[in-house]
Amino acid sequence: MGIEVANELPGMHLKAIGIVRNGIKQPVKQNWEKVVSHIVINSSLTEALDGLEEFSHIIVLCWMHRAVANGEKPIKVHPMGKQELPVVGRLVTRSPSRPNPVGIATVRLLQRRGNILKVQGLDAIDGTPVIDIKPYIPGYDSVTDAKVPSWINNL
Amino acid sequence: MGIEVANELPGMHLKAIGIVRNGIKQPVKQNWEKVVSHIVINSSLTEALDGLEEFSHIIVLCWMHRAVANGEKPIKVHPMGKQELPVVGRLVTRSPSRPNPVGIATVRLLQRRGNILKVQGLDAIDGTPVIDIKPYIPGYDSVTDAKVPSWINNL
Repeated sequence: MGIEVANELPGMHLKAIGIVRNGIKQPVKQNWEKVVSHIVINSSLTEALDGLEEFSHIIVLCWMHRAVANGEKPIKVHPMGKQELPVVGRLVTRSPSRPNPVGIATVRLLQRRGNILKVQGLDAIDGTPVIDIKPYIPGYDSVTDAKVPSWINNL
Repeated sequence: MGIEVANELPGMHLKAIGIVRNGIKQPVKQNWEKVVSHIVINSSLTEALDGLEEFSHIIVLCWMHRAVANGEKPIKVHPMGKQELPVVGRLVTRSPSRPNPVGIATVRLLQRRGNILKVQGLDAIDGTPVIDIKPYIPGYDSVTDAKVPSWINNL
């Protein structure tokens, strides 16, 4: 199990299937839980969303494009840049700055109209490419007995 | 908001950061909840995992490589191929067969030893490329009042 994995496998490239629209142009700190966004899905995929409106929540996968090409990043960081929190590995945070800048967010689906999804709580700026939409299924996605380190409470 | 999104944005390609090892060579139906897998992360990222062992659960993002290049797929499907379930859009399922075959699974982290994560409940076959690891944070990832359509109970 010690062998290295080839970093570049054939065909591992993503297509944007949609885009985030919310008028927020800069990734400043804010109460993302309240932010309402529209996700505009490519119209060729409209029918692929049929039935999504029966779910109260969806998982949105985004390509966090602002985190790309910012040069080399330290491998360990203070979560959210907060110096009072312990240093942890980069993959132990939800920072967009990671080997593959794919973000996942569980959000409330307020409305679906054709290829447009109105959601609340998506922490992504205007123009962020969307690469996937999944229904949130509690039996699969939810954990009732999850344990986290105490610094999570100070995020 | 009606404009089409450019499908191919520059730089949207993924690097494998690790690989799934569990000896399961074919994607047959089984009780994935019980399956124990090892995720071997590239050793250059070992320190990026420091602190992950304080979390009981992690979210694993995989590139579902077997779903790639299987030709054109219908845009609406019976979930899990079960004919007795209603037809829904492809994005309303968790099928690997989707525009971008990125799977997300919330799994129990049994052990971390250096660059090797021992997990339970990962529904991915041996050799699946891993593209990201995230800590499971209940306040961000969990929904207490999620509603789903009734067919979910028959999956």
